[in-house]
Amino acid sequence: MKTLILISHPKFEDSSTQQFLKTSFYSLDDVKYQVIDELYSETDGIDLEKEQTALKNFDRIVFQFPMYWYSSPASLKQFMDDVFTRNYIVANRSLKTKELGIVVTLGDTESDFQAGGAEQFTISELLRPFQAFAHKAGMQYLKPFVVNQFAYMDPDQKEKLLVDYLQYLSADMPLSLASREKWLVERLQATKESKTDDQQQAIDLVINSIEDQQNNVESLKEDVKMIRDQEE
Amino acid sequence: MKTLILISHPKFEDSSTQQFLKTSFYSLDDVKYQVIDELYSETDGIDLEKEQTALKNFDRIVFQFPMYWYSSPASLKQFMDDVFTRNYIVANRSLKTKELGIVVTLGDTESDFQAGGAEQFTISELLRPFQAFAHKAGMQYLKPFVVNQFAYMDPDQKEKLLVDYLQYLSADMPLSLASREKWLVERLQATKESKTDDQQQAIDLVINSIEDQQNNVESLKEDVKMIRDQEE
Repeated sequence: MKTLILISHPKFEDSSTQQFLKTSFYSLDDVKYQVIDELYSETDGIDLEKEQTALKNFDRIVFQFPMYWYSSPASLKQFMDDVFTRNYIVANRSLKTKELGIVVTLGDTESDFQAGGAEQFTISELLRPFQAFAHKAGMQYLKPFVVNQFAYMDPDQKEKLLVDYLQYLSADMPLSLASREKWLVERLQATKESKTDDQQQAIDLVINSIEDQQNNVESLKEDVKMIRDQEE
Repeated sequence: MKTLILISHPKFEDSSTQQFLKTSFYSLDDVKYQVIDELYSETDGIDLEKEQTALKNFDRIVFQFPMYWYSSPASLKQFMDDVFTRNYIVANRSLKTKELGIVVTLGDTESDFQAGGAEQFTISELLRPFQAFAHKAGMQYLKPFVVNQFAYMDPDQKEKLLVDYLQYLSADMPLSLASREKWLVERLQATKESKTDDQQQAIDLVINSIEDQQNNVESLKEDVKMIRDQEE
């Protein structure tokens, strides 16, 4: 599965959150990214046809941005207005069946975003325009990935953020224990090749242990099902 | 009351809807407008301080735009990102108690905007980011003014649109029969000066007739109140 991250951030290079996330997804071969602001500043105007063609190569498109006035910064909207022509989206349905993910970073705490909270509305409500776009484009709208006050995270929280983020980019959706484990095994398999024999054996042990656990879970599920069936 | 219309439209001059609306508000002295796209294209960058100072002179600020992908075109968002700094809006609360209106024009029919409809979400839901902004800024969020498929309107519908639009720009909110009538009398008074004596007399007749009707309505309200009081 191929993923494109479209980043909208007027100060991408200065953002510690964005740089942290950027460092992490370098480890995934099938993940590409594009900073929209650089696309506009480095050229005289967007190459519509090039962008439209490029998008077709990906299965999952992720809009990644800090929340500015309850939406993305203007550059993502400019990109949508320019590249997502009515012809491309509605007539030709060029993005149909692809997935649309959203990675949004918040400066305020997420719990402010609810009725009665300081921000009054939920993230779900505020992102409705993107959800409506996905609906119109025939894309599958993924549950948004919210990065909540990155600046206050301790190292353990950052590590967890990293794994969750990488899974959001490349694991099968919707995320479940099974899809997360499948993703982890694939990652481990991919890293094996460049390692020494000893390390490869260690990785195999970890993979076996994960697969054993999966089998245990499967067998537990079977047991539960049997007990339920007997009760009925 | 002074009103500023901030228009976001990449092709303002070519839009028949926008040109129709523009012709109409020329008749109101206390209504100014600014096409944001022209502000950006005619200068090397926005004069932050000038824009921030100018906004303070108005009581009602109206964002006017065609709906592009379930939001405003990018230029309004760029203006918000540039001019509405956290300091200006949150720390200094510079727009506090002002009114925020939204005039949004739709190419599709408004009835598509509901659960189960082609667009799935209501206009209210899609404009949440603007409502959340008004909340944060301490502004009063006015009921959005939706212009529904202008291209298909007949002359009568356009005339009604015109009056409703002018009232949205300059009548007291929330709109009611009383505030609409007050607005109409003020408009008639304002046009009187440049007219001949005969015309002035005719206008006075219309004003008197409106005021008589207002008195009738008031007296009817009194009667209804008296009957209710007697019943209790």
